[in-house]
Amino acid sequence: MSRLESMRRRLTAQIDGLNWALDQVADIPGDMLELGLGNGRTYDHMREYGDDRRIWVIDRQLNCHPSCVPPEDSYLEGEADAMMQALADRGAKIALAHYELGIGIREQDEKEAEKLSEYLVPLIAPGGLIVSQQPIVGIPEIDGPDTIAEGRYLFYRQPG
Amino acid sequence: MSRLESMRRRLTAQIDGLNWALDQVADIPGDMLELGLGNGRTYDHMREYGDDRRIWVIDRQLNCHPSCVPPEDSYLEGEADAMMQALADRGAKIALAHYELGIGIREQDEKEAEKLSEYLVPLIAPGGLIVSQQPIVGIPEIDGPDTIAEGRYLFYRQPG
Repeated sequence: MSRLESMRRRLTAQIDGLNWALDQVADIPGDMLELGLGNGRTYDHMREYGDDRRIWVIDRQLNCHPSCVPPEDSYLEGEADAMMQALADRGAKIALAHYELGIGIREQDEKEAEKLSEYLVPLIAPGGLIVSQQPIVGIPEIDGPDTIAEGRYLFYRQPG
Repeated sequence: MSRLESMRRRLTAQIDGLNWALDQVADIPGDMLELGLGNGRTYDHMREYGDDRRIWVIDRQLNCHPSCVPPEDSYLEGEADAMMQALADRGAKIALAHYELGIGIREQDEKEAEKLSEYLVPLIAPGGLIVSQQPIVGIPEIDGPDTIAEGRYLFYRQPG
């Protein structure tokens, strides 16, 4: 498989995974959370198909496409742990979180995801989902849609 | 359509367009040419499915993924017009060229493509193809594969 095909497969997994998760949380009240805005493509997808829920966005730096700049009052710039703590302090409840942090170094990215799980999991509303490229701990993993190759994307649901 | 879906559509057009063009030039002798390496994804695709043809690569700067660095003796770093002139001086004949130069500003990109056509078209072997994101002049345009939305990708064939 060429890197061109691999990239398309990754985008397809993101589209299928987010669409499936959005459908799963249709009846769960709460906001959404994009952890790692990047170029803003998945944020744009959540915005387009997310039924006008508020989408909190956390990133260290705003590097996105101009059309994907989040509203100022929903954007939290800084370290993810501190920003999630700020969200918790505000009483935010998240129906769907998309975790896309990482620099492409597996061991380091997994360690960071484990550390951040402690802040992320308590934000998730009962029945709410996390869709993630990294393993999250402290919340039950569930099967995602059949169309996604195993391990390419991870899905978690908050009990309740 | 979200930017995530739009990006997938673009990758699909690239994959379908390059696969179709590779098939079209199967019996045309000559090398390949990647005009604008970028991150190297389409180069990787041409490399994987290009029957071991030599792939000349022209770019102003090497910014690709480490796995997609072209062999030193096929990489020409510099302005595209001068580099294509260097190729012509070496007597290179191109069966398939992929034109991906541009900075995303339509008018400017089209003007550059028109200017560079003068160097690009004479390099193409009789029956050879250009696949391009920008309009090329001085060579007949042909229909590409049906699966690609009109205008998203352009195809040209050298008479003969």
